[in-house]
Amino acid sequence: MIEKPFIIDALQYCKWSKEIFHDMNRSGVAAVHVTICYHENFPQTIKNISVWNRYFENFSEHIVPGRTSADIREAHKEGRTAIILGFQNCSAIEGDIGLIEIFHQLGVRFMQLSYNNQSLLATGCYEDNDSGITRMGREAIREMNRLGMIIDMSHSSKRSTLDAIDFSDRPIAISHANPSFWHPSPRNKTNEVIKALAENRGMFGFSLYPHHLNNGSNCSIEDFCTMVARTAELMGTDRIGFGSDLCQNQPDTVVGWMRNGTWTLDIASGSESQTFIGFPTQPQWFQSNLGFSNILLGLRNIGFSDLEVAKIAGGNWLNFFDASLGSYANIQN
Amino acid sequence: MIEKPFIIDALQYCKWSKEIFHDMNRSGVAAVHVTICYHENFPQTIKNISVWNRYFENFSEHIVPGRTSADIREAHKEGRTAIILGFQNCSAIEGDIGLIEIFHQLGVRFMQLSYNNQSLLATGCYEDNDSGITRMGREAIREMNRLGMIIDMSHSSKRSTLDAIDFSDRPIAISHANPSFWHPSPRNKTNEVIKALAENRGMFGFSLYPHHLNNGSNCSIEDFCTMVARTAELMGTDRIGFGSDLCQNQPDTVVGWMRNGTWTLDIASGSESQTFIGFPTQPQWFQSNLGFSNILLGLRNIGFSDLEVAKIAGGNWLNFFDASLGSYANIQN
Repeated sequence: MIEKPFIIDALQYCKWSKEIFHDMNRSGVAAVHVTICYHENFPQTIKNISVWNRYFENFSEHIVPGRTSADIREAHKEGRTAIILGFQNCSAIEGDIGLIEIFHQLGVRFMQLSYNNQSLLATGCYEDNDSGITRMGREAIREMNRLGMIIDMSHSSKRSTLDAIDFSDRPIAISHANPSFWHPSPRNKTNEVIKALAENRGMFGFSLYPHHLNNGSNCSIEDFCTMVARTAELMGTDRIGFGSDLCQNQPDTVVGWMRNGTWTLDIASGSESQTFIGFPTQPQWFQSNLGFSNILLGLRNIGFSDLEVAKIAGGNWLNFFDASLGSYANIQN
Repeated sequence: MIEKPFIIDALQYCKWSKEIFHDMNRSGVAAVHVTICYHENFPQTIKNISVWNRYFENFSEHIVPGRTSADIREAHKEGRTAIILGFQNCSAIEGDIGLIEIFHQLGVRFMQLSYNNQSLLATGCYEDNDSGITRMGREAIREMNRLGMIIDMSHSSKRSTLDAIDFSDRPIAISHANPSFWHPSPRNKTNEVIKALAENRGMFGFSLYPHHLNNGSNCSIEDFCTMVARTAELMGTDRIGFGSDLCQNQPDTVVGWMRNGTWTLDIASGSESQTFIGFPTQPQWFQSNLGFSNILLGLRNIGFSDLEVAKIAGGNWLNFFDASLGSYANIQN
């Protein structure tokens, strides 16, 4: 009999339902980082937190708020899933540094410094030019370090990501991306970035979003798991985990909104797919939270040990959360 | 007897009062571009427009809304002053391109693409790195061109300014700055920028703010007027005017807010003056709108003709407004 695994997924944006929460529980998903801001301003993001407050009330059998690593351990023990709120952009803080602490008080634990485009803090991966972390970006990094809010550079550009790794006193995350040596894409990360991340004890979450996969929707599980092994050769086995980018049940209109948000009046492209504006089909072996069992098996099949699989599945993210979500004073020692 | 001059000032941020509006009228100031956004978000900027709506009601003897160059001509004929609302930053649009037209509908006619720091549209002059106009910046320029809202790059960095001149189908403005050949400052502009601006029929407004002046508060009127003459040698006499940056009667606390806004928790410096956080003393010859008469006299004294002085005083800005505030279709011809 196989013991229920301990899994952490560092990025999902599903159309939430009792069924999806139940899938998380059945699969041993102890924690999921969920997105509550792509392009939203402050009041719109507050509204999204309010929506999650209702989910926590209505689906308390399945999910609990995840604000500390203790919340995650406790949730898993109870067969529930801790939900960690996070931003894929900094639009929610509207240029007001004080709003970072307000959102931390409300339970937000991840913030990407930019999402595809230039933000007030950093450059996005689809800009032509990358000026790195801005004046306000340095202030935001300091504030996030102080509070224990995780700096996420998944959709940021190279120089900005290297700057963030350099400027941050705490390890940072690339919650959902893949290495560009495997699949070149503006969203995937170069060896230089991956190595710098690992050297600073940062975490890298492997994405299951087809645009980030070799062969897209037809990517084989062996190919994916081999990529994990090759990345482990660069980063070690302590700095890697999952960040699936699962968008289960979302309507295709959501993709257009993710890309275009409110920054253009045209139908703009913000991704590799220039023609079809919609979600690509997930690989057959990862359609929902139930797919993690396929990946864990795949990792064992290509030679990872049980201990290594456990670390990749959730142990590494849990260690990272121990270091990232505690008080700053504790971390300095 | 000297005829009342026709003056346009392309930037003021005074602590507004009946007395200041009356000074404008007495001096022949036909139009003033006033700032209603430095760091404000959308609702805060709307509130500032509401404040101006009250001024227009309460001081209708002195001021009228300035939305077209016809408004300016009419105001001057009546001995009143047209007030043109504008932003020194793009924080008011909060990343929503649709809000540009909303503000245009509400009478806003100038927007700086950035204020000292990186914005969603462009880099500010105090950033270390300058990546130029962003993806959203290109969209905003197109939309401002369409609507007839003036692109102002006064507080933007070099590459961003050159990009804006290049990308914009309409001439742009540097509403308030001086040439750096006269006084080197991150806020003043290089010959390369000044020439590119003129070649694209843009306007340059000379600042009277002491940090932008050679010898600061002790700058002599002869020195200032000689600088105007030297700039005219670079740009011609059709592309220059005033943008005084007059902040009459503002308390010193306002300077700290201008610099720091909401982007830092520290007392940051956003200007040349690192120690004293307050307004510098205005030159004795330009303390209020009444000081324009000194400058017009000074320009004559160093050899400008009456026609040239009239153009610099207001004629050039009026021509620019004719081209900038009309409908896009008319301008294309």
